[in-house]
Amino acid sequence: MALVAAVQEDARKPAASLDRLGELLRTDLARVNALILERMQSPVALIPQLAGHIIAAGGKRLRPMLTLASSRLCGYRAGERHVTLAAAVEFIHTATLLHDDVVDASDLRRGLATANAVWGNKPSVLVGDFLFSRAFQLMVEDGSLKVLAILSHASAVIAEGEVLQLVTSNDTATDEGAYLAVIRAKTAQLFAAASQIGAVIANRPLEEEEALAAFGLNLGIAFQLVDDMLDYSARQAELGKTVGDDFREGKITLPIVLAFNRGDEAERRFWRRTLEELEQNDDDLDHAIALLHKHAGLRDTLERAGHYAALARRALDAFRDGPEKRALIEAVDFCLARGY
Amino acid sequence: MALVAAVQEDARKPAASLDRLGELLRTDLARVNALILERMQSPVALIPQLAGHIIAAGGKRLRPMLTLASSRLCGYRAGERHVTLAAAVEFIHTATLLHDDVVDASDLRRGLATANAVWGNKPSVLVGDFLFSRAFQLMVEDGSLKVLAILSHASAVIAEGEVLQLVTSNDTATDEGAYLAVIRAKTAQLFAAASQIGAVIANRPLEEEEALAAFGLNLGIAFQLVDDMLDYSARQAELGKTVGDDFREGKITLPIVLAFNRGDEAERRFWRRTLEELEQNDDDLDHAIALLHKHAGLRDTLERAGHYAALARRALDAFRDGPEKRALIEAVDFCLARGY
Repeated sequence: MALVAAVQEDARKPAASLDRLGELLRTDLARVNALILERMQSPVALIPQLAGHIIAAGGKRLRPMLTLASSRLCGYRAGERHVTLAAAVEFIHTATLLHDDVVDASDLRRGLATANAVWGNKPSVLVGDFLFSRAFQLMVEDGSLKVLAILSHASAVIAEGEVLQLVTSNDTATDEGAYLAVIRAKTAQLFAAASQIGAVIANRPLEEEEALAAFGLNLGIAFQLVDDMLDYSARQAELGKTVGDDFREGKITLPIVLAFNRGDEAERRFWRRTLEELEQNDDDLDHAIALLHKHAGLRDTLERAGHYAALARRALDAFRDGPEKRALIEAVDFCLARGY
Repeated sequence: MALVAAVQEDARKPAASLDRLGELLRTDLARVNALILERMQSPVALIPQLAGHIIAAGGKRLRPMLTLASSRLCGYRAGERHVTLAAAVEFIHTATLLHDDVVDASDLRRGLATANAVWGNKPSVLVGDFLFSRAFQLMVEDGSLKVLAILSHASAVIAEGEVLQLVTSNDTATDEGAYLAVIRAKTAQLFAAASQIGAVIANRPLEEEEALAAFGLNLGIAFQLVDDMLDYSARQAELGKTVGDDFREGKITLPIVLAFNRGDEAERRFWRRTLEELEQNDDDLDHAIALLHKHAGLRDTLERAGHYAALARRALDAFRDGPEKRALIEAVDFCLARGY
């Protein structure tokens, strides 16, 4: 009990980070990185160049860490399957990032020029396809049809979510439910699948699979809510991303949904002009941020993120305390703490 | 023998078509089409709209027909696996078409506006990803890791070929070997895989798998050679495609490789200006076609296609005569006859 109390206290520290998880998984993560490097090779030199650019750019490796930590949480110790599948998960994620950046016409990711900004859209689309195929080749090597079913389903749902986001973009009539449907699909589904397969390779009962899928799903929703809030926050520069990307693209995220619904007719005209018609002047972003603060759009987005983070933590109740569980809880806290 | 002689005579007729193959596979093809229609559905309405646009636009369904015919050639009669996998093959093909049209910025395909011309690049990229995921879901339902290995490998090779094509585009130093490497990967690999899996689901020995893979590979090379030749031919309008698309994009195809190597310095300057620097005037396409005729670039491309078509026919020697074999041979003749 003393240990649990200490963990909970620890979890409330604002300095929550992924360090504990990274430390715990250090050896496994090094193998995942080596495997990623090995499998992104191709006789076509532009492929490892471009893939290396986005993969080496770092990123938190959060999704593969979920696979590694979940498998260890479930007692998987026997082999290399967690490493193979963590690499597959990261390849799926990288493929969607490459395609996202083309779709969003983004110039910066994690403080570096995007692949499409350096090499153009064409190779970004095709190298994304290559990495996606490599992900499936890794899964086939692993040999589990169940894992293949989970990750091919997740991939289809992610694509559906991305298309849905495109449809709701520039539509200020988007409500909170529609917004949540988008982020569940485009972001949270891969978090859920990455976590669930840890239980699958450890041959754990369905309840543990479902608990880990629920953990990943809720963590993914919290993660994306914070991400969407950060796009309007001063903290954003620290992430190496420009502020207001979503605004310039007319993306309807939760802070906007809340401010639009709470705004008066003049404010709604402002949102329609800037986000639907994409007629934006130099000081519109500042005005948008002022409106978001006026209606507590950022604060309430973070509050909802806290709700999903709590659901993610609760999903881990099914598992005994231990270093993996504590590290996963701290990862939840980290995702939320980014917003403060 | 009389029958074989009749078939060979028939095969030489310029009017070779896919009719015999289509007739033989009519029931199966109807089931493939129904399955495609069913599996391209999504609650996100834009997905079936866009996918339906390109899938319903027709196309020859050549690749799924290869899977259906190969499985029947190998004696597969028991179930529905050939239908499931033929639909998966068509989904992979459709996904690559959607991404190709984005990469090539094409406006027309099969005489209709491309999806990217109607809806823009963004949904084309994402719906391509969706269909690619659906292809893997169908393979997972089929449940053969061997088929999954063949088709995930083929998908990776296709993406490699597309990137290689991008790299060799606008480079008049591309030689015949580099060009062949591109079309083997981007086109012939899927023909090979689609044919090979027919033997896999019929549990036939490795030699038959390899014979069908060789059949598909050589047919695919012949098919692409004829396609590249047709881009400069008067016949092209009949296919609903504009003439000179490859020229305008600076794509280096075999007719160009041949004419460039056989041309004098003034001609090479012309090719470099039009294809590397993409400085093109109104009458440059006509001049290019004149040079291709002068150096027999089209005729010799067709001659090489004939060589690969012969290899494809020969690969079928491993199989006994019968309606499937005859229909596949006529399909080879059809692919070649398009060029005459």
